[in-house]
Amino acid sequence: MDNKHISQQFNEELEDVKNKVMTMGGLVETNVQNAIIALVEGNIELGERVVNEDFKVNALEVSIDEQCMQIIARRQPTASDLRLIMMIVKTITDIERIGDEAEKIARMAIELADMERPKDQYREIQHLGDHVRKMLHDSLDAFARTDIEAALHCAAEDAKIDAEYEAAVRQMITLMMEDTRNVRRVLNTLWSARALERIGDHAKNICEYVIYMVKGRDVRHTTIEQMQQEALGK
Amino acid sequence: MDNKHISQQFNEELEDVKNKVMTMGGLVETNVQNAIIALVEGNIELGERVVNEDFKVNALEVSIDEQCMQIIARRQPTASDLRLIMMIVKTITDIERIGDEAEKIARMAIELADMERPKDQYREIQHLGDHVRKMLHDSLDAFARTDIEAALHCAAEDAKIDAEYEAAVRQMITLMMEDTRNVRRVLNTLWSARALERIGDHAKNICEYVIYMVKGRDVRHTTIEQMQQEALGK
Repeated sequence: MDNKHISQQFNEELEDVKNKVMTMGGLVETNVQNAIIALVEGNIELGERVVNEDFKVNALEVSIDEQCMQIIARRQPTASDLRLIMMIVKTITDIERIGDEAEKIARMAIELADMERPKDQYREIQHLGDHVRKMLHDSLDAFARTDIEAALHCAAEDAKIDAEYEAAVRQMITLMMEDTRNVRRVLNTLWSARALERIGDHAKNICEYVIYMVKGRDVRHTTIEQMQQEALGK
Repeated sequence: MDNKHISQQFNEELEDVKNKVMTMGGLVETNVQNAIIALVEGNIELGERVVNEDFKVNALEVSIDEQCMQIIARRQPTASDLRLIMMIVKTITDIERIGDEAEKIARMAIELADMERPKDQYREIQHLGDHVRKMLHDSLDAFARTDIEAALHCAAEDAKIDAEYEAAVRQMITLMMEDTRNVRRVLNTLWSARALERIGDHAKNICEYVIYMVKGRDVRHTTIEQMQQEALGK
């Protein structure tokens, strides 16, 4: 085989792995969405579906890991190709953990379904959930298109989500203080908000891997401003 | 250079990376310990030290990642050597996140220091903290010695930690219900317990990577019983 042929095969293998990551990401997006709906609507059946679907996400993580190792061993990639594979290995760890958070929300939803509904119909969770879902979608999109500007834009959302989460926590504390009979329900709602906030963290990690892959610089553990400077070469 | 020489150099490089991982692990162990002491003793200064030390952990993660990539690109390892490197790449992600959890506990400690001390002097946190610290230490030890039996033993501790955490949460809920003036303090204590429980999760992940590296089978997402069977080849 000539080099061109080998390189074409290599690119096809990489595309195949990337597609699998997107499948995994899509599964997790659906699970996050369903977990939020299950919680807000008190839908036990939907909550159970999310809990039962998580094994598919886990299986994909294991299989993609294995495939990445095989590509490294067989193709011995260097520089940007190797960086892409390492990015995938790190990304799927975060996607898998987003799946775990969705499962946790679904379990909370099942517990909450039997309790009295709050007057505001979990408005805070809905609001935070919508924002987090958009951020997750955008991070996977930035990954798929290896779009550094989109990744930067998306990573910056995490601070807003953190602020919304903090506001939601303050409101929930007030609810607990008003009436101790609320404690159990509010606490489950709090854990769910916490899980959403963590999904935002994982989405931010995915964005950072994208920037890392494209620029070859490690932008983790830097501020958003530093990240923008690094990524845009300013 | 003959093959033996190259292979010796390669082994030295791997040892060097493993030593760096152990340094990173040691830093994180200290931070977890100090964060717990800061919380239990209301020691703001110690809490701030933990918060200020976390950047060292982050810097080590970035540097080890880079070193692993260089080794793969230069040495083109296959089979078990490649698996060792991938294990390191995954392990340091978990160690770094343990560091983040320690930082969170330290921030809670700083907030809690200004509040009234609970009568039990955070006995639950102390108890859970001791257990989690031991588990973290054992997981790093299993990693250093690539000891599969130790890894299995350590991974099994996570279920006990989860049970202790659940018991602590139930007790804290009771405290909140008894007196709503406790809500803020108890909630901060709850977040800290949650952070400890997550450190247990990360330590379990490290154990699973050790087993994976030694056996070449992916034991993630399996039960402890399956893991034992896989690892011991029963």
